[in-house]
Amino acid sequence: MSGYRYPAKDIQFCLEHIADIARLEPHFPNYGADLVEPILSEAAKFSEQCVAPTNRLGDKTPPKMVARCVQETPDFKHVYELLQEAAWTTLAAPEEFGGQGLPRALEVAFNEGIQSANLSFSLCPLLTQGAVDAIETHASQALKEAYLPNMVSGKWTGTMNLTEPAAGTDLAAIKTKAVPDGDQYRLYGQKIFITWGDHLMSENIIHLVLARLPDAPEGVKGISLFLVPKYLLDENGHAGRRNDVFPLSLEHKMGIHGSPTCVMQYGETEGAIGYLVGEENKGLAAMFTMMNNARQSVGLQGLAVAEAAYQMALDYAHERKQGSVKGSKEKAVIAEHGDVKRMLWQMASTLAAMRALMYTASVENDLSNTDAKHMTRTELYTPIVKGWLTEMAQEITSLAVQVHGGMGYIEETGVAQLLRDARILPIYEGTNGVQALDLVGRKLAADQGMAMSALIDEMQTDAASFTQHIDLVVSLKSQIRLLSDAKQAMLDGDVESSEAAYDFMMLSGYVIGGWLLLKGAQSDQADQAWLAKANFYFDHIAVRSDALFASVKRFSKDQAIPSTELLK
Amino acid sequence: MSGYRYPAKDIQFCLEHIADIARLEPHFPNYGADLVEPILSEAAKFSEQCVAPTNRLGDKTPPKMVARCVQETPDFKHVYELLQEAAWTTLAAPEEFGGQGLPRALEVAFNEGIQSANLSFSLCPLLTQGAVDAIETHASQALKEAYLPNMVSGKWTGTMNLTEPAAGTDLAAIKTKAVPDGDQYRLYGQKIFITWGDHLMSENIIHLVLARLPDAPEGVKGISLFLVPKYLLDENGHAGRRNDVFPLSLEHKMGIHGSPTCVMQYGETEGAIGYLVGEENKGLAAMFTMMNNARQSVGLQGLAVAEAAYQMALDYAHERKQGSVKGSKEKAVIAEHGDVKRMLWQMASTLAAMRALMYTASVENDLSNTDAKHMTRTELYTPIVKGWLTEMAQEITSLAVQVHGGMGYIEETGVAQLLRDARILPIYEGTNGVQALDLVGRKLAADQGMAMSALIDEMQTDAASFTQHIDLVVSLKSQIRLLSDAKQAMLDGDVESSEAAYDFMMLSGYVIGGWLLLKGAQSDQADQAWLAKANFYFDHIAVRSDALFASVKRFSKDQAIPSTELLK
Repeated sequence: MSGYRYPAKDIQFCLEHIADIARLEPHFPNYGADLVEPILSEAAKFSEQCVAPTNRLGDKTPPKMVARCVQETPDFKHVYELLQEAAWTTLAAPEEFGGQGLPRALEVAFNEGIQSANLSFSLCPLLTQGAVDAIETHASQALKEAYLPNMVSGKWTGTMNLTEPAAGTDLAAIKTKAVPDGDQYRLYGQKIFITWGDHLMSENIIHLVLARLPDAPEGVKGISLFLVPKYLLDENGHAGRRNDVFPLSLEHKMGIHGSPTCVMQYGETEGAIGYLVGEENKGLAAMFTMMNNARQSVGLQGLAVAEAAYQMALDYAHERKQGSVKGSKEKAVIAEHGDVKRMLWQMASTLAAMRALMYTASVENDLSNTDAKHMTRTELYTPIVKGWLTEMAQEITSLAVQVHGGMGYIEETGVAQLLRDARILPIYEGTNGVQALDLVGRKLAADQGMAMSALIDEMQTDAASFTQHIDLVVSLKSQIRLLSDAKQAMLDGDVESSEAAYDFMMLSGYVIGGWLLLKGAQSDQADQAWLAKANFYFDHIAVRSDALFASVKRFSKDQAIPSTELLK
Repeated sequence: MSGYRYPAKDIQFCLEHIADIARLEPHFPNYGADLVEPILSEAAKFSEQCVAPTNRLGDKTPPKMVARCVQETPDFKHVYELLQEAAWTTLAAPEEFGGQGLPRALEVAFNEGIQSANLSFSLCPLLTQGAVDAIETHASQALKEAYLPNMVSGKWTGTMNLTEPAAGTDLAAIKTKAVPDGDQYRLYGQKIFITWGDHLMSENIIHLVLARLPDAPEGVKGISLFLVPKYLLDENGHAGRRNDVFPLSLEHKMGIHGSPTCVMQYGETEGAIGYLVGEENKGLAAMFTMMNNARQSVGLQGLAVAEAAYQMALDYAHERKQGSVKGSKEKAVIAEHGDVKRMLWQMASTLAAMRALMYTASVENDLSNTDAKHMTRTELYTPIVKGWLTEMAQEITSLAVQVHGGMGYIEETGVAQLLRDARILPIYEGTNGVQALDLVGRKLAADQGMAMSALIDEMQTDAASFTQHIDLVVSLKSQIRLLSDAKQAMLDGDVESSEAAYDFMMLSGYVIGGWLLLKGAQSDQADQAWLAKANFYFDHIAVRSDALFASVKRFSKDQAIPSTELLK
């Protein structure tokens, strides 16, 4: 067991030779190309040495309720302190509030490491980053000054409170009430599935909560966003007396055991004091501005957990001996057996395509404030990054278990945890069905396919310019045609888009992943492994596009799937 | 929550109209067509009412070591007693030893129910059935008379002891020793991953153990099979003093928590007394004769767990309301949303094809002693049933979690357990990689493709005779051609078969499953749901065959996958 190794080289290659991170220099004064390598090198140390050793612990010693608080897994607090000390929480935060103002793409690169090393732990700083974004973009200057410096430094953490028992995907059904009381509000209601809703790692916890004013219109147009601190601030701006918000219980989940998933009660007695963020009844819009980051980050989690699982499988396959291979009487490591070899290359080549897409989307995201075309591209990429990467993570973590044989099923081995942890990813932050609908609805139909057409044009232009690995370029061109035809079928209304959406999303992922993989292969910096991955990908993974294309086309409106009443 | 419903109607349809169980009447004097319905009806009651209520309990209260025994989950003993009382253990056992001599296909139908209801529990009687087979086929008359009546009645249970730490897939590496001592043997060694290796549900446990005689040749040709009882028999044939075999510890697994997976120690002091089954050094051959049953049974477990998960998803999707559908302001159940509908039909149609294959293979298995052609067919089906059904079970249990959204990830919901339980299936009883190699090696290459060609001929003849649903028949014909071409490529040696084996196995599964689904659709007994499933299957599932075919062909010998050393 060599333990997790941060794939610095692959990340740097994707950032520099596929995503073209150099494009960010004009827009981020603090950023220069010479920063990439040292940051990745420090990210490697931190994720490998500080975070990775705690992953099994979180699984085996999950957080628990103690008095009216959540006591997190032992050792997590120490790791959190190291994270703060190394100022990792400040990387991409605004300078005005103590951040370093660096590109998010670098934050993504750091996050990949801690997510691979301990997904459960990583969610706490990740949600804080999201809360910082929301506050910075929508809150008043007074709220920003009161809360952001301590959140950026990591002294305080943040949470997102959206879901209620009857309001999951359907946020219109939210019932939590916010009653005005002077220039503040008192909140009453219950939120569920609140990740890191409570813990003892930080001095304060800043909850962002969707709730309804008493006179709010029905549905999504009556939802407002509130900032509700666990401890109200005293006159010096320090965490003071406890607010009327408490964790009620913790969920017993299939995975991410180290991440406390809380039922939160707002307002048992005098009401939880909260402050409006943004305008009344515009809460959902405020949440939506964070969506690209949040959803891409879940895609990243898919990449990260899959990478960790793959590394375990690769190590095991080169240690475990069973049988022999042709022409030898020596015991062979299982990596030499054809089917295990197949599984390892399948994982490796899919991961390469996933990582190429992840970092490309990150750099686009960093550019999205500079030009509408980058914003449009980011919005198009987001559901594909979230959906495709998290689906591929299911396949890869499962293959990693399979490579381990019987040992894969034993919890002490650790790879089963990664499969269990990964299973949340297609569900939270909008299920993959929601991502698929977002793609074919908001991102495709709503702009008559302009964004997707622009992407397809770029892929075609690229493919036409590629001079290396011409056999793969031929495959890529036919892949792009499939995506283009499928897009047209969706736009023409021949296809029942809500039913075909998932397959269309997956098709998009395979095609875009293949394009970027091959883009990498054009670089003279691409190593032999990268080229072999590109070959394997086009021979054995991208071929799935044909099946998805056929399936999309057959969700024909003329022959709709019957009601599921027939199945009862 | 309506709880598990045994799919008696679907099973009966598959047995009668696809597998043609009527063919068994001449060969099983005790069997008549009028038995099917009453047996399925009783199987329904037993699995739904007696077994299903214990499934969550096994997950939450796994067995534990108490003194030198394994104490199983509470309530399991009571269920086991009910199983014995209802004489379910005797169904397909030989009449000579107290069995009813009925076809295994009916035993499979019963087993589907208890495996859906509680996979962990079901493994105990299942392994006993396997041990009964091995003893009946290979042991001396004296051993049979001493052990079989109590094993058939269920008074005693049985286990299989193959794996050792360094001998998993590679049984040649077995080290457990058997030292002759008069007409018995003393065994010394450690076995791992022994399912239901110890428990307190039965008066005795009969272990079948692979071990080596002191002078045995190396490798698989030096392995012998021994019967080692937990309690040695006294002069009256009752369980007497304890033998020198003990469970050492229990594994902590990802799933099937209710099934004790033991490390077993043979011979701590005077040696575990055992009796030779069959001839010296022919132990592996003896195990191999049970392989068709055992492997098909794991395929059945895939079908069974997937069915249970699907039913939970179907129920939840018709209870849970979120949002509304076009043209209505009412809250809609999620089954009405396009993507959920897609998932439910995907599960339902795949399950129909899986079940059609399962029962067809079972009936062939029952015929396999009557004619070599049925034996050949059974041997061909076996790795496909094991491999394809257990892979599809991963997809279906995962979809079932997905339909539940966030609730799917909460253990109390129960569906996550089914996903965790299902994950062992591609691993045990020969990993799916081993199944794939068995298919392309022993079942394809070794007989120059005769068995597969015969199957392809039958499928083609069938397809030519099908008069209903002609559009699907056209698809089926092209599917069969793909399988035929892939087979030829494998036989011609163009393809690196060990690397292509898995995709070839999956391709076989999709094509054969589609054929049998459509065979069912030809029957005037096929209901509307069956026809809709066949449509969905050919439109959205069977299309994967094209991708698999392309992938198989590209595992070209000319362009072998590089060594995984490149990935390190």
